Formats: sequence, structure tokens, C-alpha cells
Amino acid sequence: MTTDIPQTMQRIVLAARPLGSPKPSDFRLETVPMPVPGEGEMLVCTIWLSLDPYMRGRMDESKSYAAAVEIGAPMEGGCVGEVIASNNPKFQVGDFIDERLGWQSHAISNGQGVRKLDPSLAPLSTAVGVLGMPGITAYVGLNTHGQPKEGETLVVGAATGAVGSLVGQLAKAQGLRVVGVAGGAKKCAYAIDELGFDACLDHRAYDDASALRKAMAAECPKGVDIYFENVGGKTMEAVIPLINVFGRIPVCGMISWYNAGALGGSAGEGPNIMPKIWRTILVNRLSIRGFIITDHYDQFPTFAREVSSLIRDGKIAYRESISEGLESAPEAFIKLLEGGNFGKQLVAVSPDSTRDI
Amino acid sequence: MTTDIPQTMQRIVLAARPLGSPKPSDFRLETVPMPVPGEGEMLVCTIWLSLDPYMRGRMDESKSYAAAVEIGAPMEGGCVGEVIASNNPKFQVGDFIDERLGWQSHAISNGQGVRKLDPSLAPLSTAVGVLGMPGITAYVGLNTHGQPKEGETLVVGAATGAVGSLVGQLAKAQGLRVVGVAGGAKKCAYAIDELGFDACLDHRAYDDASALRKAMAAECPKGVDIYFENVGGKTMEAVIPLINVFGRIPVCGMISWYNAGALGGSAGEGPNIMPKIWRTILVNRLSIRGFIITDHYDQFPTFAREVSSLIRDGKIAYRESISEGLESAPEAFIKLLEGGNFGKQLVAVSPDSTRDI
Repeated sequence: MTTDIPQTMQRIVLAARPLGSPKPSDFRLETVPMPVPGEGEMLVCTIWLSLDPYMRGRMDESKSYAAAVEIGAPMEGGCVGEVIASNNPKFQVGDFIDERLGWQSHAISNGQGVRKLDPSLAPLSTAVGVLGMPGITAYVGLNTHGQPKEGETLVVGAATGAVGSLVGQLAKAQGLRVVGVAGGAKKCAYAIDELGFDACLDHRAYDDASALRKAMAAECPKGVDIYFENVGGKTMEAVIPLINVFGRIPVCGMISWYNAGALGGSAGEGPNIMPKIWRTILVNRLSIRGFIITDHYDQFPTFAREVSSLIRDGKIAYRESISEGLESAPEAFIKLLEGGNFGKQLVAVSPDSTRDI
Repeated sequence: MTTDIPQTMQRIVLAARPLGSPKPSDFRLETVPMPVPGEGEMLVCTIWLSLDPYMRGRMDESKSYAAAVEIGAPMEGGCVGEVIASNNPKFQVGDFIDERLGWQSHAISNGQGVRKLDPSLAPLSTAVGVLGMPGITAYVGLNTHGQPKEGETLVVGAATGAVGSLVGQLAKAQGLRVVGVAGGAKKCAYAIDELGFDACLDHRAYDDASALRKAMAAECPKGVDIYFENVGGKTMEAVIPLINVFGRIPVCGMISWYNAGALGGSAGEGPNIMPKIWRTILVNRLSIRGFIITDHYDQFPTFAREVSSLIRDGKIAYRESISEGLESAPEAFIKLLEGGNFGKQLVAVSPDSTRDI
């Protein structure tokens, strides 16, 4: 493929560190000269940018498992891109790759640790979704940390999101009862009708954690064996007291608290929740393990083989929410943190986005 | 030994379920007829009654890992007693035993699961202390759940208590840096001078968790690898942010919260602690495991062998706080929950308490 390479590229940089929820002014769209690949490097055009909740953490200065994005630097992010110029013998113009290009229309890559994608195996966008980081997060969290057993009951929040939807479907495939929590009747219907969950509760329909807990208890007559923690907040507060002895809580996220900020801010929690949580950890001998997916990338080949085969067999459904153009990324990201997306959130960066590949 | 068996016995029953801290009026001292042992049973005279924080939980109606004490029933508790009449061929008058006799001067036992004590091996009182339930709690929590490694740093609260003092000493013996937290300068001095801790912080000397955390950070230059959770509250809030990646938190108790009540009540915590805790669990890949010591009694023989040998070699110090007479138990228990004891809290129940055996 030969493409006329433009003179400039676009990128979105972090303009300011947000206090609480990010605002559009915390981001800035810039047009800069197109970079030129050096020895061993390649120039990549972004096709798909993945938006994920963890990105909120990168906007804070606080200590986390990964460095913060510097003010003025491009926002980080996983992408699917196409090589449009290459000085790297391992990659040819026209190759599709999975690389952390960031919130940019184009970027330089040295090819290290970069995965080539075969568009004949699965749609390219799945490489940053159900067959990418969110997918393996669901897979490892459920299997390695959740230790699911047939007949058990699993609860997962953000049930129609990139992670939650796969957690529930993988658990169903292993014979568990799966109860989701999601925001809004439409998402709940999707979780039941399309994803095959046994039940899905609309957290917006319940005034507080205690009301949500009552509804959840009715859907979990044998209690909860695994709570896949990806939301925190009201869902977490509702489910913890329902967890059975020797229950497992893989913790991969807490989106409802991300905007609370690392150093405090209103998290919407009652003052006395912690003692109750801690008491349950003790009384029910819970195991809680925080995990960061990059510690487990040795499982990638197994994961990819199993899940892509399930997708090919029509046993796994996934849904994408697409926003058009790099400039739409900040707004889509802000909406994602508020639960306004429906399914895996993507930005179609390249104007002729290779949607059908 | 032949003893004239009295016509009556004394017992302390639960008079009312406490709201928050127990009051003396929540207990009632009763004099009742002396029971007579039936077929296969024996009558036991209590020598030592052990007072332990878990008893607060038994006073509540809420779901826990053990049934609540009924109103009007004797308070439960582990004891050392002497057999004074026996219809059980396995036990003779004069035998010393470790049995859950409760807050009573005398009780009937059928001998099932009862451990005979040899007073030549260790003082009898240790059977409900350093060589009993608190001892094995320290042992299993540290070794099985804490997985200590030479050169690591351990923090333990209630550092001079029955559990904390053994946790710290066992960790020191394995080459860890040990930092205790205790209430008052006298206890801190004891932890350092007698128990051999590297440091001990007086939580009363710090206004809040943040000030305590600063002092703790200075004593833990390489961070904290194991936090043995037996207090909750300010100590927990101080230590969690200092815990290293892959840190371990064996959870065996949370005495500072017991009086908060299962259904709420003031726990003295700020409203936003939970998000911070959860975030740390995630970011530092923590493993938190609640455990109940009775799940691990298969380790009793190993534990007893190791620790009694350490005591004989003078490598383990322990301290007892003795209150005189069964009638003193409620007051001693209330004080224990407030941290007013110093070392393992015992009640000398039998008037001629076999103190020197």
C-alpha cells in the first residue's frame, strides 16, 4: 500500500491535571509536524484508539503502578494502527499492529514488543477489546484469581463493559450463575438477552446500596461466591455482605471512585462502611487480591486461543461504542467515566477507518 | 485430690445485648445449684478464664462465624480447669484440662475434644495464652498467611497483647524488622525492651492516622511487607498506604471497631477511607485473607512443639494481666476492649488459683 504521508499529524495532550471529573479543558488538541522514522523505526497511522477507565489514573500525579502522563505530553492509550513507512525489517508498509500509540493520529514505533495482527482472524478492533487488554483482564481475573466452580454464583459490575461482559460470558460457559449490575434498563436487557446473564440489576433503579443489596440477594439465592470487582462504590457496598465463606474478589478496578482523586474528595460513601467490609473479610475468610494485568501477560497466548475460538463459534458476544475522530476522544472518555458508553469504547481515528477489516 | 464440692456455683450471664461499648449492666452474676455430672461426664472447677476480644462479637445478634450467646446464658470463654468429679474413664479427679467452660466457676464437660494439660511443661495459664488460641492465631497468621521472609518488615498492632506480642517475636526470630503499635509509652517500652521489637509507636501520641503514618514510615524505611491486622481503626488506616507491592495482610481481628456494632454506629473513621484502601489493594497487588483459627487447628501440634521449646529456651517472653475473681470478669473485659490491659488478660476464678503450677 502506498499512501501520501501528510505533513502534519494531530494529537491530544494532557493540558491540566483534573480535580475530580475531567473537563474538556484538561485536554488540548494539537497539530504538529509529522515525525520521520529513524533507523529501525516505523511510522504508524492510528486506526483504532481504545479508551479505558485506567487512563483516569494516568492523569493524576499520585503514585500508581505506572507513571503519570506529563502535562503537555500526549495521553497514553492502546491502539490498532497500520504501518505507513518502515525502516524496520520486521514490519512492512500495510502491516496492522497493536501498539501503545497514544491519543495520536500517527506515531513512531521501534517495533519492540509490538504484536502484528491478522485481520482474517478477527476484526481489527477486537485487538484492543475482547481479544486485547480488557479481554485478558477478564480472563485472568476470573480464572486465576476467581477460581470459578460449576454451580457457583458470580456478580460483576459494569456488566456490559469491555471487561464485565466477557467475565460474565466466560463464567456462564463454566456453568456459573451470573448476575450483572449495569446502569440503565437497556444495558440490563442486553446483558440478559445478548450476553446470556441470568440476571442484571440496574443500579440506577435503587436509591442506595442497601436497596440494591436486597434485589441482589433475591437474584443470588445461594449467596455470592465470586465478586469480580471492577467498579467499587455502590455495587461493592451492596455485594460484600452477600459473599459466601471462602468467597473470592479479584480486584481489577473501581471506576466509580476514579474521579474521587487519590488524595480524597467526595466518594459518595457512608462513613462506616470500612468496618463492615473488614468484618466480612474476616468472618467469611475472604481472599482479596489486587492484580495488574501486565504481571500476567504470559497467559496471553492461551487466552487469545481460547477466546478467539469462542468468538468464532458465536459463543461470545461483544459490543463496541464508536466515537468519530481523534478530536472526539476527550468527550468520549469523560462519558465513559460516567458510564455513558455501551460496550467497549473506541475512537475511530483514521478518517477512512478500516471498519470492515 | 479430694475436694468438698460446694452446693452452688457462680456464673456470669449475658443480661442485655450492648449497643456500642458493653456496660457492667449487660452482664449478671448468678449463683445457681452445682450441676451433677451424668454418664461419661465430669465436673470441672475453673482455674483460669481467658478474656479475648472475639467475645464482643458473641454478644451481638449479627451473623458471625459462631453463634451469638443467648440472653440469660453464660458468656462463652476458654478456660483452664481442674477435674473435681468424673464419670469419664479418660479423665481423673485432679487432671488439668483446657476446655471452653465459659464465664463460670464450675461446669460440666463430656470430655470431647478436651486437651489434658501437663503442668510440668509450662505454666497452666499459658494454655489459654501464648500456648493456646491466641498463640496459634499468631503462628498461623504469620506463617501461613503472612509468608515472612528474612529482611522484610512487619507491622503489628496491639503489640503487647496476647497475639501481637507473639507475632512480633516469631517474626524477629525469622530475621524480620518488627515495628509494633501499642497504646501508651509503657507498653511501647516493653515491646522494645522485653519483646525485642525494633520499634514501637504509641498511637495515643498521634492525633490522627496521617501523623501516625508519618512516624511509621520513618521506622519502616523499606516499606511494610506484612501488616498483621488485629486492630483495625487508626493503625490500619496508617499502615495500608505504606504496604509494599505483593504485601500480605493476614486479618485476624479489628478490636478498635468491635464496639462499633455490626449494623453501624460511630467507628471514628473518615468518610473516604474505603476508596484509598481499595486503590492500594489494586495498585500494590495485595493479598488479604480473612481467617478463622479453628480452620487451622491441624497445625496445633507443630505450633505447640515449636513455641513451647522457644519459651523453655527463654526466646519468647509473654506477659499476663490478672483480674481476681469471676465477678471481676465484666470490668476486666470492658477494659480489654478499651486497651486497658497489658499482656494476656486472665481472670483468676478459683479462689486458691493454682498460680504456681
